[in-house]
Amino acid sequence: MDFTSENTAPVHPAIVDAVVKANSGYATNFEAEAWTKRAYERLEDFFECELSAFTVLTGTAANAIALGAMVPPYGAILCHWDAHIETDECGAPEMFTFGARQIPLHGEHGKLDPGALETYLKEARFGVVHALQPATLSLTQLTEAGTAYTPTEISILTGIARRFGLSVHMDGARFANAVASLGATPAEATWKAGVDIITLGTTKSGTFGAETIVSFKPEFAKALAFSRKRSGHLAPKSRFLGAQIEAYVENDLWLKNARHANDAARRLSNGLAAVAGVQIVHPTEGNEVFASMPLAMTNQLINEGFKFHRDWRLHPRHNRFVMSWAASFDDIDALIDICKRPTVAQA
Amino acid sequence: MDFTSENTAPVHPAIVDAVVKANSGYATNFEAEAWTKRAYERLEDFFECELSAFTVLTGTAANAIALGAMVPPYGAILCHWDAHIETDECGAPEMFTFGARQIPLHGEHGKLDPGALETYLKEARFGVVHALQPATLSLTQLTEAGTAYTPTEISILTGIARRFGLSVHMDGARFANAVASLGATPAEATWKAGVDIITLGTTKSGTFGAETIVSFKPEFAKALAFSRKRSGHLAPKSRFLGAQIEAYVENDLWLKNARHANDAARRLSNGLAAVAGVQIVHPTEGNEVFASMPLAMTNQLINEGFKFHRDWRLHPRHNRFVMSWAASFDDIDALIDICKRPTVAQA
Amino acid sequence: MDFTSENTAPVHPAIVDAVVKANSGYATNFEAEAWTKRAYERLEDFFECELSAFTVLTGTAANAIALGAMVPPYGAILCHWDAHIETDECGAPEMFTFGARQIPLHGEHGKLDPGALETYLKEARFGVVHALQPATLSLTQLTEAGTAYTPTEISILTGIARRFGLSVHMDGARFANAVASLGATPAEATWKAGVDIITLGTTKSGTFGAETIVSFKPEFAKALAFSRKRSGHLAPKSRFLGAQIEAYVENDLWLKNARHANDAARRLSNGLAAVAGVQIVHPTEGNEVFASMPLAMTNQLINEGFKFHRDWRLHPRHNRFVMSWAASFDDIDALIDICKRPTVAQA
Amino acid sequence: MDFTSENTAPVHPAIVDAVVKANSGYATNFEAEAWTKRAYERLEDFFECELSAFTVLTGTAANAIALGAMVPPYGAILCHWDAHIETDECGAPEMFTFGARQIPLHGEHGKLDPGALETYLKEARFGVVHALQPATLSLTQLTEAGTAYTPTEISILTGIARRFGLSVHMDGARFANAVASLGATPAEATWKAGVDIITLGTTKSGTFGAETIVSFKPEFAKALAFSRKRSGHLAPKSRFLGAQIEAYVENDLWLKNARHANDAARRLSNGLAAVAGVQIVHPTEGNEVFASMPLAMTNQLINEGFKFHRDWRLHPRHNRFVMSWAASFDDIDALIDICKRPTVAQA
Repeated sequence: MDFTSENTAPVHPAIVDAVVKANSGYATNFEAEAWTKRAYERLEDFFECELSAFTVLTGTAANAIALGAMVPPYGAILCHWDAHIETDECGAPEMFTFGARQIPLHGEHGKLDPGALETYLKEARFGVVHALQPATLSLTQLTEAGTAYTPTEISILTGIARRFGLSVHMDGARFANAVASLGATPAEATWKAGVDIITLGTTKSGTFGAETIVSFKPEFAKALAFSRKRSGHLAPKSRFLGAQIEAYVENDLWLKNARHANDAARRLSNGLAAVAGVQIVHPTEGNEVFASMPLAMTNQLINEGFKFHRDWRLHPRHNRFVMSWAASFDDIDALIDICKRPTVAQA
Repeated sequence: MDFTSENTAPVHPAIVDAVVKANSGYATNFEAEAWTKRAYERLEDFFECELSAFTVLTGTAANAIALGAMVPPYGAILCHWDAHIETDECGAPEMFTFGARQIPLHGEHGKLDPGALETYLKEARFGVVHALQPATLSLTQLTEAGTAYTPTEISILTGIARRFGLSVHMDGARFANAVASLGATPAEATWKAGVDIITLGTTKSGTFGAETIVSFKPEFAKALAFSRKRSGHLAPKSRFLGAQIEAYVENDLWLKNARHANDAARRLSNGLAAVAGVQIVHPTEGNEVFASMPLAMTNQLINEGFKFHRDWRLHPRHNRFVMSWAASFDDIDALIDICKRPTVAQA
Repeated sequence: MDFTSENTAPVHPAIVDAVVKANSGYATNFEAEAWTKRAYERLEDFFECELSAFTVLTGTAANAIALGAMVPPYGAILCHWDAHIETDECGAPEMFTFGARQIPLHGEHGKLDPGALETYLKEARFGVVHALQPATLSLTQLTEAGTAYTPTEISILTGIARRFGLSVHMDGARFANAVASLGATPAEATWKAGVDIITLGTTKSGTFGAETIVSFKPEFAKALAFSRKRSGHLAPKSRFLGAQIEAYVENDLWLKNARHANDAARRLSNGLAAVAGVQIVHPTEGNEVFASMPLAMTNQLINEGFKFHRDWRLHPRHNRFVMSWAASFDDIDALIDICKRPTVAQA
Repeated sequence: MDFTSENTAPVHPAIVDAVVKANSGYATNFEAEAWTKRAYERLEDFFECELSAFTVLTGTAANAIALGAMVPPYGAILCHWDAHIETDECGAPEMFTFGARQIPLHGEHGKLDPGALETYLKEARFGVVHALQPATLSLTQLTEAGTAYTPTEISILTGIARRFGLSVHMDGARFANAVASLGATPAEATWKAGVDIITLGTTKSGTFGAETIVSFKPEFAKALAFSRKRSGHLAPKSRFLGAQIEAYVENDLWLKNARHANDAARRLSNGLAAVAGVQIVHPTEGNEVFASMPLAMTNQLINEGFKFHRDWRLHPRHNRFVMSWAASFDDIDALIDICKRPTVAQA
């Protein structure tokens, strides 16, 4: 009954199996082994293109290494006010870019507004040495509001960015959920829509911890490779990261996990929407439900053992419920039932 | 028959078990769970003192985060010419200290020479703004030559460092092998001998990948905590790192693994020493054997499937054989037998 | 008729004389000479306290070195949205702090709002490793809107900052104008009101280019000294910077220059306020006048040779007129006369 | 009688005049004025090519900004052990490259040995992520031993560098002295010999403080421009730097100053060479004399008021006498006479 984050859920058994199986005999370290090689090949299938890929342990690392390769120290990163790189990485992008600045922009339901982006870029002082130079657009998919950019929406934003000379980064911590929800292919939701580098999350989708920086542009590969090592993110026993990525992509595990989590979210969202006093504050387009509910209802859920994120710093009374591959429909129904109880709903 | 590095060996079954067991149910992310808590308590038992500890995935990360907390940007790190931080981390210490410089010093068999250290510090331009300021002494245990600093040797070096105001870092990638070899306690080989921070390796001793920055001085804790997150090294699913550390310290797994590896090295070292034409170039005081041997002998070993590191860039013809918890005595004996073959030894 | 910036005006003759006179014979380099020594003593008189001081060539350098000594890489700097460090230094604070973030806050007429500061700090996630840690409050005096913080206003803001553990930096590029306008002593407007470090500008007040980082807290001195050298800002022929500072403080040159510039600004402000269609958009509390005027009036001034800053990016139609020690009352009157011309005012 | 450094000598009257004359009326700030424009044009004449140029106040800044534009964070700079960037800049290159490493190499009389350079590059682990990647060769002209690289010597070194993909930086703090001594043109000693960027010193040749980063390759211009501003080295009142550079290049002031200083050095060198017990330890090829002399002789010179650098840290008993445009032949003769005195020479 822990809906705080996908990261509190157990690792998926198929991933555990893959890791245990990879532990047979000796294997060369630092990616000169078969697991990582296969994993990178599977990612080329997944994205239907040639690419360079770099596994790391955390999403913060993946984002920071990617941005470090894309943005000069005197550059600026344009992102949404609620983006993880802006709010929850303790300045990792600043560290890895050696001091580039993030420019947070607005947009409804976590989606960057094309108008806001264009206005900012039109007024940016390109070529003026007193001003940081916009270099990269960073999109989060799913957004921090649990919504999914459609390929068309991505194309519009990356088109604006491209017109002003910016490259495009996608923080894909919940990319699987987005793709499952959109019914688009991974290719359609990334490079075909103008994305240069995606940091592809799998940790939130059931692995022990394995994120991959995927670059669709060869010019970033050298900086990515050296920056990963230099920041201590190249795993000696790389086969165990490779094995996780391989298992994640094989047999559509990623898609099955994402669909289950999305179904769970829709079930919760639909259930809560029917409860008086509850408001679904963002469209449920992935595996997250954001609901505003009375304080008494929130407290009752906590008292009965439910865990979730009270995202109250930015939006008072907004509760975030995150569904993982392991989310139980029974738990969801139990949660909805509590909210529906007359004593709770009318408190 | 892979003696390249401990990191090519499989993970120890007790560690695999611990990780699989830790995957039961939900657990709060980012170290607010029981495994990490217990691991840190076990480390306090291990070192017999209060400490602050921070797990990360790689040794490069552990060293760099530690040095980043100890050394100002205008500081200098004194270390051995062959130190891993100097030769194999792509400038990670420079990145995490924001540009501090490493000053490599000499010393036989990988051990920093106290005279060289004192001479350098006496001539250092302390307080002169044109010169980088020596800030931290970094010792590697085992050294890169496979030798072990005794507690007395450590005390002499840290005493000199202290006299000039430096703090002391220990790169303990093979600390277990050193301690097992010395017959000293972990405490005697660290804080009792003047070490402020050790980066305690377990990856080379049989884990999937789990290194711990252990600070014996509370003043470093804040910078360590923030730097770990900011550099992307705080694992969301921290329980799996905690579980490894816990299992590693419990039941003296670390000591059993280290003793086996050390025994294997001694067996190989003794065997090779008796072969004509072979010279053991550094004392075998841990789990590494450095042997100079004829080219034909080296090639024969390779032809028969043995893998090892030809450390020929710095020292032509020096081969390095590294023993892990999994090293097989049969393999070692087979290797020695090949070298002893008249056709090989006389080639 | 150039009111773009004080920096377009000529250097004051007394400063030129001081520099020419300092060029007599030999003098030790790197501040081991009499001019810098005397300059720093004069600054202790000026501020009525012991201090450590460091001259540099530019205000951007002074601010960045100061903030670099005050803010850890994982720290945050709180400042006004319009602060020079935020808008016009190409990320110098980010470079010198190694990636700390600036948090821009609102406030009328360039003055940080105490309520906004307190609200931000109350909601800041102190001690949470995912969030940058507020470390320093930076105030600009004169503000970028040409207003002057009173000692009381400064005390209120620094009091809030102090309560949350922040240190306080003042960007004093136009400090002389502020002090002259307030009738306060330099001490009252800085350390007596809670300021820890001021970057004291003189360039805008008539020198060739000489800014001084003045620290009222001894704990910052070492980092300031090393950071200045390390960033290339320690002048070899330091006597020429020292001579400028000495001449600037001696005989109240700073005060005379500031009063003249302030008088000029008041004259312009009063004159323009009486013109139909012109609005003085910020109180004139120093040497800057911000006036909103019809486009035709702006163009007529340009056509007749007046130069000034059209600060239209942020505030359409706002013109900024900056007065220096050299500002001519005749030019000011001429400017007002043009605006008053019926053909212009009614265009 | 101060031979410590050219920077203790007074500024040349022609430079003072130029600065005083530049102080007439108003001039746009930040290089949008005529002086800097003319200075950069004069530099194109001086070097006989198109170039991009950036004035700053100090040589440390010039070197660091240049290297920052040339070397990635994971790069390495190859230079001589005695290079100023290695010994006297407090790690400025490390700061501006964000942690690249300097690899000091040997060579007689301050000149990098081509064999040492080639050997290092042959053994460098290009493409291996564990190792910093050699990126730039940095040569100092005059060397720190007062010798001058001939164009042929430069070509040989830059040819090796080029073959391994490195770019070439020249620290030209005493470039004028070298060129005057070699009888080569500035072009022959730089871009025609394979130099990409020179940091051209004038401070040591008689200006108040004006160094110029000159790039012969357009691809470095953007990073240089932004890095200069971002590090606080773009002077608001740029005309005074421009005026110095213009005056320095015009009428061959640079050449006259350099020739005088070189003549003075030769006079001193020849005189001392004839004194028993004195050894000229490096060839005198510019304006510096390095002489080993008995302790009593050194002390007598000090007692009689001579100042010079006792470079005893690296080379016991080596005194360095630096000649400037202002060096007096009478002082030199007096110095030689003291050394020749029987009581002194035989002490």
